Amino acid sequence: MRILLDLAYDGTDFSGWAIQPERRTVQGELEAALRTVLREPAVQLTVAGRTDAGVHATGQVAHCDVPELPNDLVRRLAGVLPQDVRVRAVREVPDEFDARFAALWRRYVYRIVDAPGGVDPLLRKQVLAWPRVLDESAMATAAERLLGLHDFAGFCRRREGATTIRALTRLSVERNGSEIACTVEADAFCHSMVRSLIGALIAVGEGRRPVDWPATLLDRDRRADEVPVAPAHGLTLVEVGYPPDDELAARTHTTRARRD
Amino acid sequence: MRILLDLAYDGTDFSGWAIQPERRTVQGELEAALRTVLREPAVQLTVAGRTDAGVHATGQVAHCDVPELPNDLVRRLAGVLPQDVRVRAVREVPDEFDARFAALWRRYVYRIVDAPGGVDPLLRKQVLAWPRVLDESAMATAAERLLGLHDFAGFCRRREGATTIRALTRLSVERNGSEIACTVEADAFCHSMVRSLIGALIAVGEGRRPVDWPATLLDRDRRADEVPVAPAHGLTLVEVGYPPDDELAARTHTTRARRD
Repeated sequence: MRILLDLAYDGTDFSGWAIQPERRTVQGELEAALRTVLREPAVQLTVAGRTDAGVHATGQVAHCDVPELPNDLVRRLAGVLPQDVRVRAVREVPDEFDARFAALWRRYVYRIVDAPGGVDPLLRKQVLAWPRVLDESAMATAAERLLGLHDFAGFCRRREGATTIRALTRLSVERNGSEIACTVEADAFCHSMVRSLIGALIAVGEGRRPVDWPATLLDRDRRADEVPVAPAHGLTLVEVGYPPDDELAARTHTTRARRD
Repeated sequence: MRILLDLAYDGTDFSGWAIQPERRTVQGELEAALRTVLREPAVQLTVAGRTDAGVHATGQVAHCDVPELPNDLVRRLAGVLPQDVRVRAVREVPDEFDARFAALWRRYVYRIVDAPGGVDPLLRKQVLAWPRVLDESAMATAAERLLGLHDFAGFCRRREGATTIRALTRLSVERNGSEIACTVEADAFCHSMVRSLIGALIAVGEGRRPVDWPATLLDRDRRADEVPVAPAHGLTLVEVGYPPDDELAARTHTTRARRD
């Protein structure tokens, strides 16, 4: 049977999601825990967003195929997993469900604090401390102009064969005291896209670039070197959206390459 | 002149507030930073709540006497302090101000998560993961019966000469999903009092003790061995209340011993 796993992790001490030899990865830790608990050596996870090293998740989604779903699986996984990764919930899903290809949208939040004293120490591993005050209105205006279906190659690390055309459905900038939260939602993201978007907005917020500069980078055929990539630790994958289970079959075999 | 410092710290890697030889303490780090930035070797801090090892703060208050108050002190301290302690703000206060003796109340929050999957990894160093579901209604009822002016010796580590009579003005228990937040406010706290109160409430929440058990511990002359002390990392000092500056003079030389 196929099961969905609702996941959270602190990305600080992981070399990202994707399993790599000799590296501590979220996928590696989770697959090891599942194999131990299920006594099933072949478990392999497919994930909605292959987060980079240092990126966190509160609402990551993965799937895998297992012989059965023990009803205390969440508690048993909690007993063997390291404390920086948690399985929040599991449920059986139709065989047509695919955590990566069935996802309709991914939502990330990037948090920045621009207080002169720096960031709250309890949040320092998930919020970027920016040493100068940012103009969040300029950032919000710049962000609006990026919304819609565009070729985001100017914000992506190029990968062979993968499309860089994405539908950016939300890019909001909201200040609450000294914290600025940037919420980014799209059907999918190409590599380093979220952090490049944030890097461009920070350049606007600082006044180093005009408000219309990020939009001028759209439709370029490769990433502009002058686009800064914001540090990973400010970024958290917060939610992934899927169609209802009964509509999944219609969406199977959508093989458009999607990443993060 | 006398200045007030509004402080935040992640208590994880500190041996508490109070300076000790050979130990990393919040007071030690802050005094070293102040001496460096102010080039004033005699700076000494007085604090509202001498938090234990592992306890955090988002709203700690301290005072010290300095020759002058540079207007970029917060930013300059941020440049030399380690990232797990921050000075959020500073301001000049009347000479009668005393961070410890002028404080009218201290407020702490203790956070517990009782989800079977454990605590959100990004919160694991500031929230206690409890492996069994807690009955927050029973905890709230038990908490109400502790409110008021009592001798809390049954919840305190005994110290020579210090009173254990305290006015507990708030002890609320609120669940939000799988997180239970216990807010504790009193004129002052004796040593280990907050964590003993929480330990007693958890025993009730688990059903190991009846709802009226914590109140039966009031007015004992020393701490009951059967009162568990909740782990430090779930506890955060969130706010300290003071009278308005113009009422401070009237409160000077109140020498009643207060702690935490």
